[in-house]
Amino acid sequence: MAEKVGFVTMGEKKGVAKDIPELGIGMLGYAFMGKAHTNAYKKYPYIFWPPVAFPRLVAICGRNEEAVKEAKVRYGYEKYYTDWKTMLQDSEVQIFDNSGPNNLHAEPCIEALKLGKHVFCEKPLAATSEEAWKMWEAAKASPAKAMVCFNYRFVPALRLAKELIEEGKLGEIYHFRAQYLQEWIMDPNFPAVWRLQKGVSGSGALGDLGSHIVDLARFLVGEITSVSALTRTFIKERPSLEDPQKKVPVDVDDAFVAIVEFEGGAIGTLEASRFCGGRKNYQVIEINGSKGSLRFNLERLNELEVYLTDEEPKVLRGFHDVLVTESYHPFYDKWWPHGHIIGWEHTFVHAIAHFLDAVVNNRSIAPYGATFEDGYRCALVCDTILKSAETGKKELIQY
Amino acid sequence: MAEKVGFVTMGEKKGVAKDIPELGIGMLGYAFMGKAHTNAYKKYPYIFWPPVAFPRLVAICGRNEEAVKEAKVRYGYEKYYTDWKTMLQDSEVQIFDNSGPNNLHAEPCIEALKLGKHVFCEKPLAATSEEAWKMWEAAKASPAKAMVCFNYRFVPALRLAKELIEEGKLGEIYHFRAQYLQEWIMDPNFPAVWRLQKGVSGSGALGDLGSHIVDLARFLVGEITSVSALTRTFIKERPSLEDPQKKVPVDVDDAFVAIVEFEGGAIGTLEASRFCGGRKNYQVIEINGSKGSLRFNLERLNELEVYLTDEEPKVLRGFHDVLVTESYHPFYDKWWPHGHIIGWEHTFVHAIAHFLDAVVNNRSIAPYGATFEDGYRCALVCDTILKSAETGKKELIQY
Amino acid sequence: MAEKVGFVTMGEKKGVAKDIPELGIGMLGYAFMGKAHTNAYKKYPYIFWPPVAFPRLVAICGRNEEAVKEAKVRYGYEKYYTDWKTMLQDSEVQIFDNSGPNNLHAEPCIEALKLGKHVFCEKPLAATSEEAWKMWEAAKASPAKAMVCFNYRFVPALRLAKELIEEGKLGEIYHFRAQYLQEWIMDPNFPAVWRLQKGVSGSGALGDLGSHIVDLARFLVGEITSVSALTRTFIKERPSLEDPQKKVPVDVDDAFVAIVEFEGGAIGTLEASRFCGGRKNYQVIEINGSKGSLRFNLERLNELEVYLTDEEPKVLRGFHDVLVTESYHPFYDKWWPHGHIIGWEHTFVHAIAHFLDAVVNNRSIAPYGATFEDGYRCALVCDTILKSAETGKKELIQY
Amino acid sequence: MAEKVGFVTMGEKKGVAKDIPELGIGMLGYAFMGKAHTNAYKKYPYIFWPPVAFPRLVAICGRNEEAVKEAKVRYGYEKYYTDWKTMLQDSEVQIFDNSGPNNLHAEPCIEALKLGKHVFCEKPLAATSEEAWKMWEAAKASPAKAMVCFNYRFVPALRLAKELIEEGKLGEIYHFRAQYLQEWIMDPNFPAVWRLQKGVSGSGALGDLGSHIVDLARFLVGEITSVSALTRTFIKERPSLEDPQKKVPVDVDDAFVAIVEFEGGAIGTLEASRFCGGRKNYQVIEINGSKGSLRFNLERLNELEVYLTDEEPKVLRGFHDVLVTESYHPFYDKWWPHGHIIGWEHTFVHAIAHFLDAVVNNRSIAPYGATFEDGYRCALVCDTILKSAETGKKELIQY
Repeated sequence: MAEKVGFVTMGEKKGVAKDIPELGIGMLGYAFMGKAHTNAYKKYPYIFWPPVAFPRLVAICGRNEEAVKEAKVRYGYEKYYTDWKTMLQDSEVQIFDNSGPNNLHAEPCIEALKLGKHVFCEKPLAATSEEAWKMWEAAKASPAKAMVCFNYRFVPALRLAKELIEEGKLGEIYHFRAQYLQEWIMDPNFPAVWRLQKGVSGSGALGDLGSHIVDLARFLVGEITSVSALTRTFIKERPSLEDPQKKVPVDVDDAFVAIVEFEGGAIGTLEASRFCGGRKNYQVIEINGSKGSLRFNLERLNELEVYLTDEEPKVLRGFHDVLVTESYHPFYDKWWPHGHIIGWEHTFVHAIAHFLDAVVNNRSIAPYGATFEDGYRCALVCDTILKSAETGKKELIQY
Repeated sequence: MAEKVGFVTMGEKKGVAKDIPELGIGMLGYAFMGKAHTNAYKKYPYIFWPPVAFPRLVAICGRNEEAVKEAKVRYGYEKYYTDWKTMLQDSEVQIFDNSGPNNLHAEPCIEALKLGKHVFCEKPLAATSEEAWKMWEAAKASPAKAMVCFNYRFVPALRLAKELIEEGKLGEIYHFRAQYLQEWIMDPNFPAVWRLQKGVSGSGALGDLGSHIVDLARFLVGEITSVSALTRTFIKERPSLEDPQKKVPVDVDDAFVAIVEFEGGAIGTLEASRFCGGRKNYQVIEINGSKGSLRFNLERLNELEVYLTDEEPKVLRGFHDVLVTESYHPFYDKWWPHGHIIGWEHTFVHAIAHFLDAVVNNRSIAPYGATFEDGYRCALVCDTILKSAETGKKELIQY
Repeated sequence: MAEKVGFVTMGEKKGVAKDIPELGIGMLGYAFMGKAHTNAYKKYPYIFWPPVAFPRLVAICGRNEEAVKEAKVRYGYEKYYTDWKTMLQDSEVQIFDNSGPNNLHAEPCIEALKLGKHVFCEKPLAATSEEAWKMWEAAKASPAKAMVCFNYRFVPALRLAKELIEEGKLGEIYHFRAQYLQEWIMDPNFPAVWRLQKGVSGSGALGDLGSHIVDLARFLVGEITSVSALTRTFIKERPSLEDPQKKVPVDVDDAFVAIVEFEGGAIGTLEASRFCGGRKNYQVIEINGSKGSLRFNLERLNELEVYLTDEEPKVLRGFHDVLVTESYHPFYDKWWPHGHIIGWEHTFVHAIAHFLDAVVNNRSIAPYGATFEDGYRCALVCDTILKSAETGKKELIQY
Repeated sequence: MAEKVGFVTMGEKKGVAKDIPELGIGMLGYAFMGKAHTNAYKKYPYIFWPPVAFPRLVAICGRNEEAVKEAKVRYGYEKYYTDWKTMLQDSEVQIFDNSGPNNLHAEPCIEALKLGKHVFCEKPLAATSEEAWKMWEAAKASPAKAMVCFNYRFVPALRLAKELIEEGKLGEIYHFRAQYLQEWIMDPNFPAVWRLQKGVSGSGALGDLGSHIVDLARFLVGEITSVSALTRTFIKERPSLEDPQKKVPVDVDDAFVAIVEFEGGAIGTLEASRFCGGRKNYQVIEINGSKGSLRFNLERLNELEVYLTDEEPKVLRGFHDVLVTESYHPFYDKWWPHGHIIGWEHTFVHAIAHFLDAVVNNRSIAPYGATFEDGYRCALVCDTILKSAETGKKELIQY
């Protein structure tokens, strides 16, 4: 019989892709971000084929044993831990992925870096800039790679935006404006979850949503030098998560607005809120330069609107609605034929691909990935926003 | 022969609409705004049929005699003047329309009000808040009607927005954000026209564009209590209009950004620029309240996007794209069947209709039209924006 | 006193624009189209300044004397008539504007042409292709100008589309698709108005809406050679206009769909309906050629979407959303600064401008204006659509 | 130490989710569709947690041994085959997934069904309606489940559309219009791939794209009773895939247009083309009914536009732009927080979830999944479209 049947063994796997190593992942967290990161590790090797490494899902860690046990089975991790310190001792864990809450970022990441483990940490880097600074110090002192998961840098449309700006297609940048608007806590009876507790999250809309647009502002336009800001807490107390009959005060911002100056001369507006009815995950960015403009909306993340000031023929000047799904667009050669759009989750696949490439090929996280320095600088801008909101003055960023 | 032929005389005109008076218009200015206002007077009577009055185009005034003479013929005015003071003495002029440059608003309007003539003045009310205050004083002291032409209050979609907010459809207002972006002076060789000279215009993008969104902020959400702002002049000198070889300094803002607080507790962002490539006349307003949101874009002025937080069935919640062209929408019963959209110029027809109704039927300009008090308050906010940009502090509005 | 006052007389009018003649207009109809056409005559001279002629509103004609008398005063006509034949005898009437119902197009237009009067006739040219053919014959036999008011040829965006196609910017045309969707008779209790009576209108959605897109298909892509079609009357009887208690049968189409072949090899779809909820005046056209595509939506008539297949850089390929309001766009130098959009009514101003230019300067109506030949050919396509709907076969157009 | 470490074995997996069976997958094809289907099997269990079964990737089959071997490693299949007949004999294969080319659908699927294996077959069901009929016969004769992967039925927005129509929210349906436009073979030098060869694909744009919209027409509105159609092959010969110097004739349609009648009284237009520049994967559907309308665009697949005719308050009537990403929307409780959009690939996850549920819980594939009867009926409509294009007549569908 001419037709052949093959039972390829794991040994043969090496045969097909012989120099491809495995990298053991130790995951902290199994909720929203644990799901998003794990999904990325699982998809990466067959989407970015051939991969630079096969992520091996070694262990997942969380405090609730029943839950973490189920997460282990659900996602196919080999083991589970209920203590991150123990997990970090596991020699099979080579990469520490921190998808835990903000106040659980600094200590585990610093410890992992000390142990020489590569760290992939969910944003914001820390609950405060002081913590973030310590993490950056730890990253500098470690031979391991450290990256903050500012995943929106890895939206194809935003990477394209970055490339356009770097190539000078927009000319000198005059304006940056970004809004990150959501609506999920408008109901006054929505409980005081951890994201609404300063002790756990550090801040409210600012750290959760604002940090994304601060990072994108820095990524796309450059350093922010000053901020003037206002914050608001529209609903001042909410039902306790433990006892819905009890009200607890909300000590984080429901929203902030800020105006900023950039090193390069541009001015900008930044705004984040969780009180914008109808705005589900509405992160909108517009940049205007001397040669053109661009606009991005996360709810339509496969598109980028671009205007070129001197385009010919001039009768056809207008914003191009670019469907960023061509094989020659960032990351898209890995996916589907054009027009077969990707989703929000895939930004994590791109981020993981970038991180693993840095780890395996000893490449720099910067400038496309966010380093811990970026994480710190972002945190500093956020802290200065809070400060300005208190002082009522334009505050300079003291990097 | 059963068919009849009629030669209706002017007397018969009274027969058809016997109580309809004539009102003599004296127009100052024949450029952009002179054209827009005149067009409105000409269209008003047959579009808002039957009209409260027939505007009679008595006289037009401008300094360049050749030009004003041509404008007289072009638009069908009966006379022309080259001196506004003389025109104001013309007893046939009952309404003084000031479509001149900003620094020619205060004195003629005050004089007209003293003479008991009704005044319809293009925005901004004056080049400075001091002048605007004097104009408000003059208006208070006069029995005549005085209105500032903040014409965007008369966009059907924005009047609908106003009504929705007044009815509580959006609940408590949390956020206001407005951008008014244009691109027309991005070319560094664009000359230093009057709008770029502080002595004539008072300010740059702020007074020209910003005043519109400050007025709309007040119209829709209420008094602004504080501002923090930045301004920028991107192109610091430009060719002189008289001698293109000569460069003259630009002493007005090319752009401003501001964050504001409202009396009612909302926060907002305001921004205007003439350096946003691709943005032709892009005035975009979004308002978020506890029960809903709305969004408006002047380049698509026939539409209003509205989201209602508690709408049923909830599976269909989403922004409604309302084409505000139904007979039951503001002003639209005067126009065409639905979907047959109107243009920018028609906002002036609505404004004139409101003004003439106030004049003839002794109705109040407020709350739908902008009074001279509104003009003053708007100017004060603008001045305080400039002040904050200088001091780097949050400045309270000192009404 | 240096300042001068001028009382320019009508004689001076000639002084300012001495070679500008007057042209006397005789208008048939004072309803929807009478209003739209009259508005255009009134706006034309000061918008298209200097005009090729001053339209003089000599007379308006209608059967209801009270109504026509009021229309005369409302619009400023000098006289009124209740019989079109008498009006056509008026020597001051040089241009006959037929804004009457479809079954009142043929006879008056033919009579006017015989009398040597220029004719501007609302579309569709006639209720049937037979009538249209006679009108075309009359036009050929007359020295006067004859134009059908297919006003959408004069939307700036569609004129731009025409120019792009003529210049080969879209390459060889493969596809044309047009839908003209409205919703105004969805209510089964909407009465049987004249547009729903075959005897007056000739057909339903087909003649009213379909004729527009058939004309645009011919205008933009070329001759249609075959059609296959279906028609539907969803509501088969309606309340009589005279006696709402009485039901009368609806003998025209509520909707039609058709597929067509073009002489040049393209294929297309055509569709019109008055039963599309939410579609107010939704005329959407898309054309795809070997080098590019374009899309137009009448509800956003200031915009044209254009895609160029080989545009560089290719990473930015995407539909341009062109705001067709630049001074270098068709007709727009007459209007306002860019971004200050125009409305539906202004298409008639452009059409009138084209017509008056043809009359005064003896220029050809074609190719930008629709001739009576165009009106006939359009009617023939429409008739063949009805025929195909009956025979269930692909029918060739027998020009 | 209170913290615990867990090494959960496969036995424990059963412990966590003890009644969850495994189902062995045998996959035919490793190209575009093989990738899309495999990805779905891999994602399904942890996204649709807890799953009804764990898909076990038993084997993948393809003719090119090197390629299928690599695919095996890439996707994690346990074995590979180069002969589908051999694979079907593998007792560990319980589900046969046919992601091969159209002319390889009938025989393998029929064989699999005879062997009692469940079959999940990519669309179109077959290259001709005759083949499709035999497959339907085989499905009826088998106890196994058989489903055609018309994956767009599983777009959340289109499932929502289906539910709205079933609930009567749109009332009686008057109109269906669908276009499926792409651009990928516009270049005349694009080679004659299998999709352009009638012997392999059966037809061109019709079978590839048209079958999707025919299926959706039937899914959403009901049976099609007649068609009138045109087809076009714009580029009549292309470079051979094997020898680019050689030209081979293209014997399939590049595009088709059709008008259709539905059993329920609606009329519709259908159109598919691969010659529409700028249209990447532009499947647009609009439906109008007596109570409302909806519109869907596959390039923005997370959105559904809906208009309700009698909505209150009427001043806010307008198309809702529904972001179909709420936990209460179809399928979305499995994914991410609202506004975190999904991509094209996820429609396959939903389809697989539906199929596995039918297999494990012995549920019906219909009405939400496409049965082999649906596949046959769709093929018959497509064949009749080709027939009508030849005869030039309206052809009835002879189910």
